[in-house]
Amino acid sequence: MNPWPSPNLLWVTGGAAEGATPLNAFDNALLAAGIGDLNLVRVSSIVPRGARLADAPLQIEAGSLVPTVYAVVHSDTAGDTICAAVGIGIGKDSHGMIFEHHASARDVAKRVVTGMVEEGFARRGLPLERLLVHVADHRVERVGCAVAAVVLWWR
Amino acid sequence: MNPWPSPNLLWVTGGAAEGATPLNAFDNALLAAGIGDLNLVRVSSIVPRGARLADAPLQIEAGSLVPTVYAVVHSDTAGDTICAAVGIGIGKDSHGMIFEHHASARDVAKRVVTGMVEEGFARRGLPLERLLVHVADHRVERVGCAVAAVVLWWR
Amino acid sequence: MNPWPSPNLLWVTGGAAEGATPLNAFDNALLAAGIGDLNLVRVSSIVPRGARLADAPLQIEAGSLVPTVYAVVHSDTAGDTICAAVGIGIGKDSHGMIFEHHASARDVAKRVVTGMVEEGFARRGLPLERLLVHVADHRVERVGCAVAAVVLWWR
Repeated sequence: MNPWPSPNLLWVTGGAAEGATPLNAFDNALLAAGIGDLNLVRVSSIVPRGARLADAPLQIEAGSLVPTVYAVVHSDTAGDTICAAVGIGIGKDSHGMIFEHHASARDVAKRVVTGMVEEGFARRGLPLERLLVHVADHRVERVGCAVAAVVLWWR
Repeated sequence: MNPWPSPNLLWVTGGAAEGATPLNAFDNALLAAGIGDLNLVRVSSIVPRGARLADAPLQIEAGSLVPTVYAVVHSDTAGDTICAAVGIGIGKDSHGMIFEHHASARDVAKRVVTGMVEEGFARRGLPLERLLVHVADHRVERVGCAVAAVVLWWR
Repeated sequence: MNPWPSPNLLWVTGGAAEGATPLNAFDNALLAAGIGDLNLVRVSSIVPRGARLADAPLQIEAGSLVPTVYAVVHSDTAGDTICAAVGIGIGKDSHGMIFEHHASARDVAKRVVTGMVEEGFARRGLPLERLLVHVADHRVERVGCAVAAVVLWWR
């Protein structure tokens, strides 16, 4: 018996912001990503078979409990670049995987999550049908945060 | 479709304790807070619109899966004061927010979470109707832990 | 009201692996443990009263949301031994507790989680009927990870 149905809809998003504290910067980055009013339940990190990518931001009621995979990075060093990335591997008639990484350069973040997804599929012997990467980056002014996220939802 | 109904009841609590290990100190602090026999699912950190504050400790069956926002702080330095705080902002006809912080003094912990909640509401352009802060503090003897928590539940 | 039924089945497992990155090593360790294709929702850490131990690996559909208690340890120091342990205390007509620890030697990991479980029961004044420990260990080659886990599921 499984009382929690598997999600079948993915929403890939990201955002970055400054804040008076690291937690406020995180909150503001989540708002920038459109997910700041949700109760995120962090999960690791499988795309259920047949899950579809949302083609527009989901409208989810504030305060909902929302399973989410995310990468987050903070910095309080002015001038730093911070990059949070998620890589989403969609399988061919199989489940897929999501990997997270953060780095100080977009291309690094992108390259690393791409490699992670490729290794995840290779290790499972599954063909990778489609690979998406989303990177949120930010140049820190005082206290900054970048978040890249995949919301797992139900259609 | 959303298979997980949004919580509509908040229970604010906290506690502190010593333990033989940091994890036991955490367990004992949760027991002191009245939530040590629950399966806490950590979430970030929205008060659903219309959620009510419990006016007494909730009776929840041991082993239940319970969405909870919490701040936790550990120390193994004898004589340290450790303070964990949650700040709960209740909206006026809107959702609200919960922020967590830990510090080495009660007034600092309280001031910081208060500022966090105020920034959260200001950033969203929402009026803050009511602000509650709960701080759990502890003077460390050997291995100590303090926890402040908001249980999100259903009435 | 509680929309999330309490789990009543426990599956104790563990695994270890190398990977190109720490996150891939974690993914590969989860695969070795038989839980790499699940969306793990990390919880702390109660055995509901009457929950039964699974006597064989559970067959759970890929991408399911699965409440899980786990200990994890990473290292990128070649030659290191890493050990992740869970200790499961089953109560006599009561709920029980699960504790996690990681260490650099099996016997240490085992001894520490055993003590944790004993303290957890003693502190609650509950008799400990049965104690299980599961340790996953690994000798690091380049980037390694060990995971010990208890899946909380429903029968």
